[in-house]
Amino acid sequence: MSNMLTPLRDIRLRGFGERVPVDEAIKWVDSHPANTNSEEIPTGAACGRFLVQPFVAPADAPAVDLAARDGYALLSAETVGAGGYNPLLFHIRGAESPLGAFSAVLVSAGTPLPPGADAVAPFELVRVATDIAELLGPVARGTGVILAGQEARKGAILIDTSRPLRPSDLGLISSFGIELIRVIRHPMVRLVVTGPNPSGNPADANGPMLRALVARDGGLLESCTYGATKRDDIARLIARPGADVILVCGRTGTGADDEAPLALDVTGTLSIHGIALRPGGSCGMGSAGGVPVILLPGSPLACYSAYDLFAGRLIRRLGGRCSQLPYRIRKARAGRKIVSSVGDVEFCRVRFVAEEVIPIGSANAGGLASVARADGFVLVPAPLEGYAPGTLVDVYMYGSELEITTI
Amino acid sequence: MSNMLTPLRDIRLRGFGERVPVDEAIKWVDSHPANTNSEEIPTGAACGRFLVQPFVAPADAPAVDLAARDGYALLSAETVGAGGYNPLLFHIRGAESPLGAFSAVLVSAGTPLPPGADAVAPFELVRVATDIAELLGPVARGTGVILAGQEARKGAILIDTSRPLRPSDLGLISSFGIELIRVIRHPMVRLVVTGPNPSGNPADANGPMLRALVARDGGLLESCTYGATKRDDIARLIARPGADVILVCGRTGTGADDEAPLALDVTGTLSIHGIALRPGGSCGMGSAGGVPVILLPGSPLACYSAYDLFAGRLIRRLGGRCSQLPYRIRKARAGRKIVSSVGDVEFCRVRFVAEEVIPIGSANAGGLASVARADGFVLVPAPLEGYAPGTLVDVYMYGSELEITTI
Repeated sequence: MSNMLTPLRDIRLRGFGERVPVDEAIKWVDSHPANTNSEEIPTGAACGRFLVQPFVAPADAPAVDLAARDGYALLSAETVGAGGYNPLLFHIRGAESPLGAFSAVLVSAGTPLPPGADAVAPFELVRVATDIAELLGPVARGTGVILAGQEARKGAILIDTSRPLRPSDLGLISSFGIELIRVIRHPMVRLVVTGPNPSGNPADANGPMLRALVARDGGLLESCTYGATKRDDIARLIARPGADVILVCGRTGTGADDEAPLALDVTGTLSIHGIALRPGGSCGMGSAGGVPVILLPGSPLACYSAYDLFAGRLIRRLGGRCSQLPYRIRKARAGRKIVSSVGDVEFCRVRFVAEEVIPIGSANAGGLASVARADGFVLVPAPLEGYAPGTLVDVYMYGSELEITTI
Repeated sequence: MSNMLTPLRDIRLRGFGERVPVDEAIKWVDSHPANTNSEEIPTGAACGRFLVQPFVAPADAPAVDLAARDGYALLSAETVGAGGYNPLLFHIRGAESPLGAFSAVLVSAGTPLPPGADAVAPFELVRVATDIAELLGPVARGTGVILAGQEARKGAILIDTSRPLRPSDLGLISSFGIELIRVIRHPMVRLVVTGPNPSGNPADANGPMLRALVARDGGLLESCTYGATKRDDIARLIARPGADVILVCGRTGTGADDEAPLALDVTGTLSIHGIALRPGGSCGMGSAGGVPVILLPGSPLACYSAYDLFAGRLIRRLGGRCSQLPYRIRKARAGRKIVSSVGDVEFCRVRFVAEEVIPIGSANAGGLASVARADGFVLVPAPLEGYAPGTLVDVYMYGSELEITTI
């Protein structure tokens, strides 16, 4: 890891000294190699997962020439000259017989073409009397036919590893008879929610929020433990094997009971504590037994901010996903001044009023209610004291995954 | 339903007559009222679900004034004049005692402010000697404090019903101690995959694809049955109670064995059969026992096209979601002619080359492999014979839900 700042370890009752820039913390996250651990799962359960190897067509698709439509399979060369005033006669044969001269075989879309046929005439072009078909127009070669290998050639790369599998991919893979595929394994995430929550309100906001965020980012919950407060108890929960990532929530600050950073220091290494981010500045990072550990603030808004910037990025990265923020950016002008303090990256929730964005709450205030009322957020870089009204800003849009369009 | 065309019912071995415009089929879908059936589920399991009623703050949040930071709670009026050269002395008291004159109480972020205090001095501003704190600067009223009701006032609408619940919403709701919430019930979807697949390749592509699509659109699989081919068997599967939507896949065309439309006609009403859509033209719609039934073509590409335009819309609608296509639109120029046949809406897969889109396969050809290779699709309206190179078109983007941005 490049020249990381080494903060004081026990900053309790003293306050953070200089805090680590957000960029440095992101560098720490990105120093972890993407997961290449894989598992074999049923094809039908693989939507949203990432392949380990590109999917290569194991055979031509289709394997043989198929009828592309319902109709009569025949030899196109025999249809030349057919017309409404000059119907040509074809003998209707059973599907099993090879095609004789001026013969036609009734076929369903998707079934193999009888040997000798090279086109399928649609019913609209045929008048049938018992076993004789009158053809009312010519049919060009290949009409109504899917040629062998037309959809995919054996050996062609059909799906690469850079994107999650889509529903149609599951269909494509299944169409080759492949029932199991190898995908990147979900990173196992251990959640340690310290507590009890010291706020006036005893209910825990962070547990349900973090579980949903971990799921969003492709992590699988290894375990979720509530209530540890003592240094040794937290340390024991960190030290236990079995997780790919450990998130410890709460007890990260400068209060007398903020034991999480010290617990990590006991059992592993605390690499970063205190980040120039608002809210979320008491976030910490380190590792224990080779497993990355992220310490998230207990204040729900700060927890959310730090999770999204660092923990989510790490989980996405370990799961083979793109590590960047999973929100679409929309450019918009600030309708009011967006206030920020110099020196910190600020996580500013905003909402749209007409085509402009206005801030909701301030960096540290407003709680999760300010997120609920927001359409997205703006990250104000550390050197700026905010954005003046009219500035064009990047808005990370909530709900981009359900962005709706009209047809 | 407005003057719906009444197509012939048994079009087997004859071909479709006039087919129903896509707009009419969408009108049929939209004639079904959105689901308001609800269920109570654990708050922590509600990510992505829709509330039945707006979520209203059941109490002020926070309930009492809280410390927003770790530090010393005190009365701001007593700090006037404090400075590095003029430290003011405060007695450090225990958290339980009410605040006396020139007293300070050590507090952790998120804990209630002691009665009488109206600000929290950060540790950086305090020098401590046993039970005496030297304050090195003034602290303004409200500094480091979250006032009762500042995040949310009792009775305020915090989350409306128009959007799915986000991870942070679960935290917000949980923070009020609410463990169960009422959300729109998932529509129960019955899948009837007729078969066996008559193609040269015996593997089923549609089952795994449809299951993943149903899940994407918020449907819950009620049951999935493979292999019915006889009219009565299909009819029985349709008639059984227990589903909110029934999808019958395959056997929808003009072949001798295309029994699905007739099966629906036996047990209910076939309202539409044959839609001016390519691929997907053999799609049908109707109802049985008040339950909407959609007949999807068995050709996987046609199945996919018809599912996305009609079945997905119906399932999203019944689940309280926005019924429109769940893809982000990106405007782009056609880099080559996009070919389409007049009279049909065409589902054209496209991929980006530089900033332009070029078609992959043609409407009826290319199979699911053409979807796998596509970045999205274009819907060419029925009156057009395609788009000339250079035309600005709307591209429905695959993977919009995972659209990635840089921070």
